[in-house]
Amino acid sequence: MLLSKEPPDIENILALNPRIRKYANYVPSNDTKKIKKKWKRNQDKDCSTCDSLNKNFDDIKHTTLSERGALKEASRCLKCADAPCQKSCPTQLDIKTFITMISNKNYYGAAKAILSDNPLGLTCGMVCPTSDLCVGSCNLEASEEGGINIGGLQQFAVEAFKKMHLKQIRDPAAPALEDLDDSFRQPIALVGCGPASISCATFLARLGYSNVVIYEKNDFVGGLSSSEIPQFRLPFDAVNFEIKLMKDLGVKVELNKPFSACNGLTLDSLKKSGNKAIFLGFGLPNAKVIPLFEGLSEKNGFYTSKSFLPRVSAASKAGMCSCNSQLPSLRGNVVVLGAGDTAFDCATSALRCGAKKVFVVFRRGFTNIRAVPEEMDLAKEEKCEFMPFLLPKKVERKGDKIWSLEFHRNVQNPDTNEWEEDDSQIVKLRVDYIISAFGSGLFDQEITKALSPLNLNRWGLPVVDDKTMTTSEQDVFCGGDLAGIAQTTVESVNDGKIAAWNMHRYLQRIAGKKVVTESPELPKFYTDVDKVSLSVEICGITFENPFGLASAPPTTTSAMIRRAFEAGWGFALTKTFGLDKDLVTNVSPRIVRGSTSGHNYGPGQGSFLNIELISEKTAAYWCRSITELKRDFPKKVIIASIMCSYNEQDWVELAQMAEKAGADLLELNLSCPHGMGERGMGLACGQDPVLVKNICLWVRKSIKIPFFAKMTPNITDIVAIARAAKEGNADGVTATNTVSGLMHLKYDNSAWPSVGKEKRTTYGGVSGNAIRPIALRAVSAIARALPGFPILATGGIDSADVGLQFIHAGASALQICSAVQNQDFTLATDYIQGLQTLLYLHTLEHTKSWEGQSAPSQPHQKGKTKIMTNLSIPFFGDYAKERLEKMKKENEKKDLLDKKYFPTDIENAKQVYEIPTIQSMIGRALPHIGTYGDLDNKQQSVALINDDMCINCGKCYMTCNDSGYQAITFDPNTHIPHVTDDCTGCTLCVSVCPILDCISMVNREGIKLPNRGVEPGKVIKLEV
Amino acid sequence: MLLSKEPPDIENILALNPRIRKYANYVPSNDTKKIKKKWKRNQDKDCSTCDSLNKNFDDIKHTTLSERGALKEASRCLKCADAPCQKSCPTQLDIKTFITMISNKNYYGAAKAILSDNPLGLTCGMVCPTSDLCVGSCNLEASEEGGINIGGLQQFAVEAFKKMHLKQIRDPAAPALEDLDDSFRQPIALVGCGPASISCATFLARLGYSNVVIYEKNDFVGGLSSSEIPQFRLPFDAVNFEIKLMKDLGVKVELNKPFSACNGLTLDSLKKSGNKAIFLGFGLPNAKVIPLFEGLSEKNGFYTSKSFLPRVSAASKAGMCSCNSQLPSLRGNVVVLGAGDTAFDCATSALRCGAKKVFVVFRRGFTNIRAVPEEMDLAKEEKCEFMPFLLPKKVERKGDKIWSLEFHRNVQNPDTNEWEEDDSQIVKLRVDYIISAFGSGLFDQEITKALSPLNLNRWGLPVVDDKTMTTSEQDVFCGGDLAGIAQTTVESVNDGKIAAWNMHRYLQRIAGKKVVTESPELPKFYTDVDKVSLSVEICGITFENPFGLASAPPTTTSAMIRRAFEAGWGFALTKTFGLDKDLVTNVSPRIVRGSTSGHNYGPGQGSFLNIELISEKTAAYWCRSITELKRDFPKKVIIASIMCSYNEQDWVELAQMAEKAGADLLELNLSCPHGMGERGMGLACGQDPVLVKNICLWVRKSIKIPFFAKMTPNITDIVAIARAAKEGNADGVTATNTVSGLMHLKYDNSAWPSVGKEKRTTYGGVSGNAIRPIALRAVSAIARALPGFPILATGGIDSADVGLQFIHAGASALQICSAVQNQDFTLATDYIQGLQTLLYLHTLEHTKSWEGQSAPSQPHQKGKTKIMTNLSIPFFGDYAKERLEKMKKENEKKDLLDKKYFPTDIENAKQVYEIPTIQSMIGRALPHIGTYGDLDNKQQSVALINDDMCINCGKCYMTCNDSGYQAITFDPNTHIPHVTDDCTGCTLCVSVCPILDCISMVNREGIKLPNRGVEPGKVIKLEV
Repeated sequence: MLLSKEPPDIENILALNPRIRKYANYVPSNDTKKIKKKWKRNQDKDCSTCDSLNKNFDDIKHTTLSERGALKEASRCLKCADAPCQKSCPTQLDIKTFITMISNKNYYGAAKAILSDNPLGLTCGMVCPTSDLCVGSCNLEASEEGGINIGGLQQFAVEAFKKMHLKQIRDPAAPALEDLDDSFRQPIALVGCGPASISCATFLARLGYSNVVIYEKNDFVGGLSSSEIPQFRLPFDAVNFEIKLMKDLGVKVELNKPFSACNGLTLDSLKKSGNKAIFLGFGLPNAKVIPLFEGLSEKNGFYTSKSFLPRVSAASKAGMCSCNSQLPSLRGNVVVLGAGDTAFDCATSALRCGAKKVFVVFRRGFTNIRAVPEEMDLAKEEKCEFMPFLLPKKVERKGDKIWSLEFHRNVQNPDTNEWEEDDSQIVKLRVDYIISAFGSGLFDQEITKALSPLNLNRWGLPVVDDKTMTTSEQDVFCGGDLAGIAQTTVESVNDGKIAAWNMHRYLQRIAGKKVVTESPELPKFYTDVDKVSLSVEICGITFENPFGLASAPPTTTSAMIRRAFEAGWGFALTKTFGLDKDLVTNVSPRIVRGSTSGHNYGPGQGSFLNIELISEKTAAYWCRSITELKRDFPKKVIIASIMCSYNEQDWVELAQMAEKAGADLLELNLSCPHGMGERGMGLACGQDPVLVKNICLWVRKSIKIPFFAKMTPNITDIVAIARAAKEGNADGVTATNTVSGLMHLKYDNSAWPSVGKEKRTTYGGVSGNAIRPIALRAVSAIARALPGFPILATGGIDSADVGLQFIHAGASALQICSAVQNQDFTLATDYIQGLQTLLYLHTLEHTKSWEGQSAPSQPHQKGKTKIMTNLSIPFFGDYAKERLEKMKKENEKKDLLDKKYFPTDIENAKQVYEIPTIQSMIGRALPHIGTYGDLDNKQQSVALINDDMCINCGKCYMTCNDSGYQAITFDPNTHIPHVTDDCTGCTLCVSVCPILDCISMVNREGIKLPNRGVEPGKVIKLEV
Repeated sequence: MLLSKEPPDIENILALNPRIRKYANYVPSNDTKKIKKKWKRNQDKDCSTCDSLNKNFDDIKHTTLSERGALKEASRCLKCADAPCQKSCPTQLDIKTFITMISNKNYYGAAKAILSDNPLGLTCGMVCPTSDLCVGSCNLEASEEGGINIGGLQQFAVEAFKKMHLKQIRDPAAPALEDLDDSFRQPIALVGCGPASISCATFLARLGYSNVVIYEKNDFVGGLSSSEIPQFRLPFDAVNFEIKLMKDLGVKVELNKPFSACNGLTLDSLKKSGNKAIFLGFGLPNAKVIPLFEGLSEKNGFYTSKSFLPRVSAASKAGMCSCNSQLPSLRGNVVVLGAGDTAFDCATSALRCGAKKVFVVFRRGFTNIRAVPEEMDLAKEEKCEFMPFLLPKKVERKGDKIWSLEFHRNVQNPDTNEWEEDDSQIVKLRVDYIISAFGSGLFDQEITKALSPLNLNRWGLPVVDDKTMTTSEQDVFCGGDLAGIAQTTVESVNDGKIAAWNMHRYLQRIAGKKVVTESPELPKFYTDVDKVSLSVEICGITFENPFGLASAPPTTTSAMIRRAFEAGWGFALTKTFGLDKDLVTNVSPRIVRGSTSGHNYGPGQGSFLNIELISEKTAAYWCRSITELKRDFPKKVIIASIMCSYNEQDWVELAQMAEKAGADLLELNLSCPHGMGERGMGLACGQDPVLVKNICLWVRKSIKIPFFAKMTPNITDIVAIARAAKEGNADGVTATNTVSGLMHLKYDNSAWPSVGKEKRTTYGGVSGNAIRPIALRAVSAIARALPGFPILATGGIDSADVGLQFIHAGASALQICSAVQNQDFTLATDYIQGLQTLLYLHTLEHTKSWEGQSAPSQPHQKGKTKIMTNLSIPFFGDYAKERLEKMKKENEKKDLLDKKYFPTDIENAKQVYEIPTIQSMIGRALPHIGTYGDLDNKQQSVALINDDMCINCGKCYMTCNDSGYQAITFDPNTHIPHVTDDCTGCTLCVSVCPILDCISMVNREGIKLPNRGVEPGKVIKLEV
């Protein structure tokens, strides 16, 4: 037996491992035709029948994303300058900001951005026809990958926030309710608790109005979102959550209050009962029904979308209403008439009520369909049929029941493009049920009466000013479907928002106050998180937050620092300056993209390499600038970064200049890795503890303000240098400068960057995420060696999460450069809100098992969590069919309205611990870090694979075979991997698994001894 | 005026830069409705008319990819273990291998993998219905992102190869034609020059048959690919290229040779003229026409797909035939009958021949459509209409011309699922042209006669064995449509491949030779590139190629090394072993994913961090293994990696053991960054030049074989250590080991990896691409300081490209670990073929401006290069319409058959320079690398933006504003950026631009002086 040959059991395991093949493959075509069915993941095009979807109300949206999916999608977003997505969103959502925040795992910040502009951000993330809105103008539509899944990201962010159980509050910086005058206590009535009113009420409450009541005719909230959008596109859970956020602000909802003359709730009665402003947002209550269907009702098999969808909702949305409805019971052929989104909702809902086959029949062609393609696609995938160019003309019944529907052809004259009915062409469909989805209107005379004295238009709807949402009555405002402008939920939401501002203006005017600002000041979304203080004291100086700009390209000029302060950064370094005699001039090119993250183009570069020198500007420029900035931003901290050669007089002169200019702190740049070293500056000083100590001593003597020495990582022992700085009485250190490197050689063997026609280069400084492990090590090593010695961290800080890691490692404040190079100054908001959230979550109980803002992953496939778990059956080919069968059986037994399906996550979480300060977080990780000898090799882990999340790629299997221990088997049929007892817990499988949290490391029971190959001490002959 | 405030001109530039907003946005919905049209990138759903596509035969495939798009898509591929994509491909293409190679910019290797299994790899990449084949089973269909664009990647790779102008040759390792016996010179005839025959002939020629002739009835090659698949889906260029590759192998094509009894070319005549085997691959020549259309012809406005598509092709495929055809001239309404891919090709072609409106009418429903969705989608996007359930029944004419078409309804009985014609339901369409696409068959009696004496089935087609493609005559084989098995081009190709092997078996049998191997041995694709030698001599030892496995997890056992050698690796290190007294036991977890490339899950990790120790196996195990491996792989190089503490006796004992075992070389591990250092081993020795020198001296004295010292990068001056090793008479050094780091801290402030319930950690070793800049610097610095001193490089080598960079930097051979952890041992093939290609391309003239295997980027949008350039008009909203108008006008003037549109890239390139050796490449970059002072700051660059590639994201603008020089303006309407004279050439804009080669750096005319802010020497008062 050879030691160097896999034994037979391992050879078995290796059977499916990739091998090099010497010859071309040879499989007859008919064999492949069969075998491909076995592996099929998408729909089989040869399958023309519907799977039974009876009672299956699980999410069918293509857009739903798991955390991993969301992170991947968010990282694709370019975060464009003048982002067109935002311009195409009716509520003008700051889309790129929320996507940036998702990228950085700041889900709170993302949700805050969304809910600030759109209080129904979750609903809209789920139901917006995005291809016609934000996504339609995404600049990535110009790339092969296509536009971003903005709806899915929006849904993901708000759902992640929902799990935090936080309460909406008013802007903490605004006057408290009790400090507002009486004009804010005037009663306001909103009619209809749908999207428009919820939005309007939310903004009114944010503005400070404390007497806002919504009157709703139904015994449930949400309006059309609840009653007409099916559960599988918009679960009641989502609607309920948004209502809860609105109620957090004190808005009241009165149910069972129909607006109708016969009921007593009318414009007139609302005014009489003291309401100073009224918003009408009750939508279009009545279905448009063509005369053909008059007299037909459910008992005949006839529904309108307005009679069908609410019944489906009532029977499938647990917790929505107290009714105990049953689904409409359909069977056989169902015809849906119409080509709007409602028609497709009816079609897919019909399948869930027992329809065998659904035909969507519409009057014009495919090119005239009103719904966006993504809405039609859902119906198409579920095997609905489509019939264009048909006008319904005759219903035939058998007994009571509808038996067939006859159509005339609708013909477009090719010359005139006019549509003409041709009654000589008759198409007939055998039909059991008809659902008419021809839109809706206001045809209820009692409601019309209740609208008196409003001016109505020819459709019987209030005349509304589309800029202000005012009606003919100055105290009555209108939005949503009733106003005739909105065609989508998000436009209704915007109607409510626009109305809210104009109601505010009106209410303030009638209260006799000066007109409110001309430019609208609608408050954003807030919670207690926004009150968390991030201030930190370093060397007696208060930093309002720990995020600042490093001495680097983002501080090329002092005007840029000014803009950075305006954007919220807590502090800034100047670019390093020197004495006039040391002035430099840069070469070009000098800052290039890293090659450390693969062939990655665009923002999100994991590293940069630069051969840029210190500032080209004079000390005089910088000193004057410091003075200006300190005057204008007294609370911001300005750190002057200076550099000289090893010469006492120079250091003294420069340090004193900077102090005199008003700098709060100095940073001595002893670490620039390129160019300056050759002049005896930068790392030429910083690699020698003696020089470092002496420079610090010189500076210490000459100035009173604190100063930091900036460390180079290009050194055997960074702690020794930090110690030298401390011995030189520096007040702290900055760790670290860039890592010296050579990024990339081109095919012609010149480097990039290469200067001039000679294509020369020199070693440059690597920055960004690639050097983060080095920086984290440096910070923690210095913090461990010199407890209490302040550290400013820099090196790959690109999120609040990473910032907190550096603080845990011992840093007091955080310097950023590469992340800004990848994007812009607005990142400050992301980092600040992100860190506030991370601190705030420490105060709650239910988030203890979270990783930052991430709740633990739920088993899912394609982001959808409603899967049957623990079956160990894959999700492809025949296995998928087997799953469907099981699911079908389960659905049939299901009580859709059972309490266990009621909305979740609506209780506001209690704050049970104190909010930690930044100060208290500094260095928290240090006790965990030690020598290798401190690690216990008796406490072993093994890998555990979650079959429900597995996508059967076998990456774990491959890496275990070729880089590990051959301890994972891979089933040739199911492609499910299985970890054997040979697992040594190396964790490579986790590292390369494409699905977040699909593999986890768990404690091994007992101990596994290492395989020594040949036992120690045993003599073995060499000859073979 | 303040120095620290942007001047008004810069404020103007900054107008569109992102800002923090204090309030929610406020824009009425109707305003957004208007403005969103301006930014629209996708189709406007409200637009129901076709844009004129007259004479527009540009690529319309969604799948076409630019290089950037291909790299991005390829990086998504997981390279699954038992990849289901391959199992669903009729030719069993090794898809994951070719995608891996694309990821690594080894386009030659990718094309080689494709063409090995599929000689029509370019055609199939363009026309395969992939959703029903490879993509249908892609494991990523289980993720939110969906399956990989395999067709697009396949097209990209072969097109990239096409640009290389290389000739196909037979396997260089196979006997030369002249050394083959006469059986290989037997005449073979193939009938019909379409996909099946091209494939069959190619494989026959690869097997060594030198007398292969294809007889083609037309005056052009390609069969259905040329005549029936439209130019916008499959340009003639592609077909022509594949024919050229086939002809490279000596296959002959005789045109204008119809197979027909009346013509004289029959089975009988072919046999009589000496052909020993015959392949029939001429397809189905006749359209199926229903009786209703009998007597109708083009002059009435009636076409079949067989009469229509060839005319379109002849008139739109420049260079295909000598005919000077005109496009069929259509107008008004065109009805296409059928629901296969041909029907949709007819529909989209009709639009290009002048149709105003196209109706695709089919007999069954949407759920029964034979074409895959992606084929139908093209027609849908171009605004064709679809009418299901209709049977054509009556043609009405006005004069000569077709005037209308009447249909009966085809009704599916809901109970029986049977289809029944209902003649009471009549639908009528006003029609100017009818194109019938009801499939094809063999109805030509003269051809049937020519097939005699073959047994025919009930469709009149040859009876064919689907496992071997043999007919009832043992010397006659058949494939493609004629054989009745293939429904797609790729299945036809596979038929030809299967037939080729069985023809070979037959021909060898009749030649009286022993039966050829039972398991098929179909040769792969080769060119001269495959003959390039990669051998390199180091210290007198020949390495067959420079790629080996580092001492790391991939060499955990010697059986793994055996498998690696079988996979092609040139050399391998053992995992580091020590004496029994130093035996180690690992902790778990110990190898974790890097955090340096963002939230990236799955393979393609840019870094790993490990706290793994040296081998847990004994020296006895390793020494015996070395002996075994050397015996079985005498040409492979085995390097024993050893480690001891600073103790002469130990080093001598271990070095001698390894030498005695037969190791070719030793590597002294003086650099392990974790765990071993605390025991006085690894980097504890390697950071001190004195210790390094002494250890080397000890080892040198005790053994004869060469040895290398492995360097740590965790050091101030790596050159000093290398010099010490040299002074200790080491034969070379390995640079470098991993970089010491701390990868990640979790939210609970423990690290990852964390060991045991105490969650302890220690600093680990960072490997992978993140440390590449450090390794490249180390290698080049040592090479510059110690010329000729051999270096084995390691640190982020993950492709042939990167391997060559390290060789250029001074390395002689390359050690790999992290890349294998990300994937598997088969990577060796990629690296070897990639490096062969890079060397070979040095011999050509036309590739001089290439960057490795990448030809310079062509302006493109969405990967499509047929755009009008230099217009400076964006590609969205009204601008896109403006472009379309211009394009329309241009198309109308166009002579589609002009010589300038003839196929390109078919001349084989001449080898004009010698093939370089690896040896000659070592250290080529070193003369470019020097000190900063050597760089010329007078030779300046500035950025130049290519408006034609720009996607208007404004990333360049943002980074220039917030991290640079405010030297890029951004037009508020066109969103086109423009570089001003203030550009200092920093290159950040290039670094963050998402589109490869959209921005380039060009020489500045003259010199721009730096902006000093305040002139040097000028005194300025501080008070403001």
